Amino acid sequence: MPVDHLGIAVRSLAEALPRWEGPLGATASPPEVVDSQRVRIAFLDAGSTHLEFLEPTAPDSPVAKFLETRGEGLHHLAFAVPNVDRKLAELDSAGYRLIDRVARTGARGRRIAFCHPSAFDGVLVEFVEGEP
Amino acid sequence: MPVDHLGIAVRSLAEALPRWEGPLGATASPPEVVDSQRVRIAFLDAGSTHLEFLEPTAPDSPVAKFLETRGEGLHHLAFAVPNVDRKLAELDSAGYRLIDRVARTGARGRRIAFCHPSAFDGVLVEFVEGEP
Repeated sequence: MPVDHLGIAVRSLAEALPRWEGPLGATASPPEVVDSQRVRIAFLDAGSTHLEFLEPTAPDSPVAKFLETRGEGLHHLAFAVPNVDRKLAELDSAGYRLIDRVARTGARGRRIAFCHPSAFDGVLVEFVEGEP
Repeated sequence: MPVDHLGIAVRSLAEALPRWEGPLGATASPPEVVDSQRVRIAFLDAGSTHLEFLEPTAPDSPVAKFLETRGEGLHHLAFAVPNVDRKLAELDSAGYRLIDRVARTGARGRRIAFCHPSAFDGVLVEFVEGEP
């Protein structure tokens, strides 16, 4: 199952992106606000996968809380799946703890769902519908 | 620049791997001990990149200390580069803080080097020589 993207929580996209663009030899996408998660997001291509930089847009957003307790850094790991609903059903019946029992709309209008970090050894795992 | 692998720190490979193998539909590689880092490592294919699971083999290993302070979870992000020495020189001259100023031997006998997390927004970034 391919990695769709890797989420990285930062305080400021404007400050973080140039630090990555040089060494990676890539230019970030124009930032996009995802209201449901109260974040501003920009992507950077890294081979066949992507880095997703997340800047909170509100102090009560999950990413703002993550920054408060853990600081900047690796935030989540997303896999691309053909069908998110089928994957959720499969995980649920195998006893994996889910955050989203129903898929919701994420960045770039794609259907996404998160599992609880306790399901995957402390890693916040996301499933995204479609090709990476 | 392609992602070579994503490192995930766990207390026990034997307990963690089956949790990932099912949902990812992949089988982990046989564990390998990397003495220089005092870890036992197993890889799981994820599309054109890999998940690298790290279990400490000694209580004073960097991964053991990470587990103590942060718990299990995402540990580092590795990019594949054609030449690690050239990448280190490029980063050094651009003012990026490095952990390794000289490449060393990592898992699967590959040449690797780590940058300090403060260089990349809290992310421990590794460069690995060769194809992912």
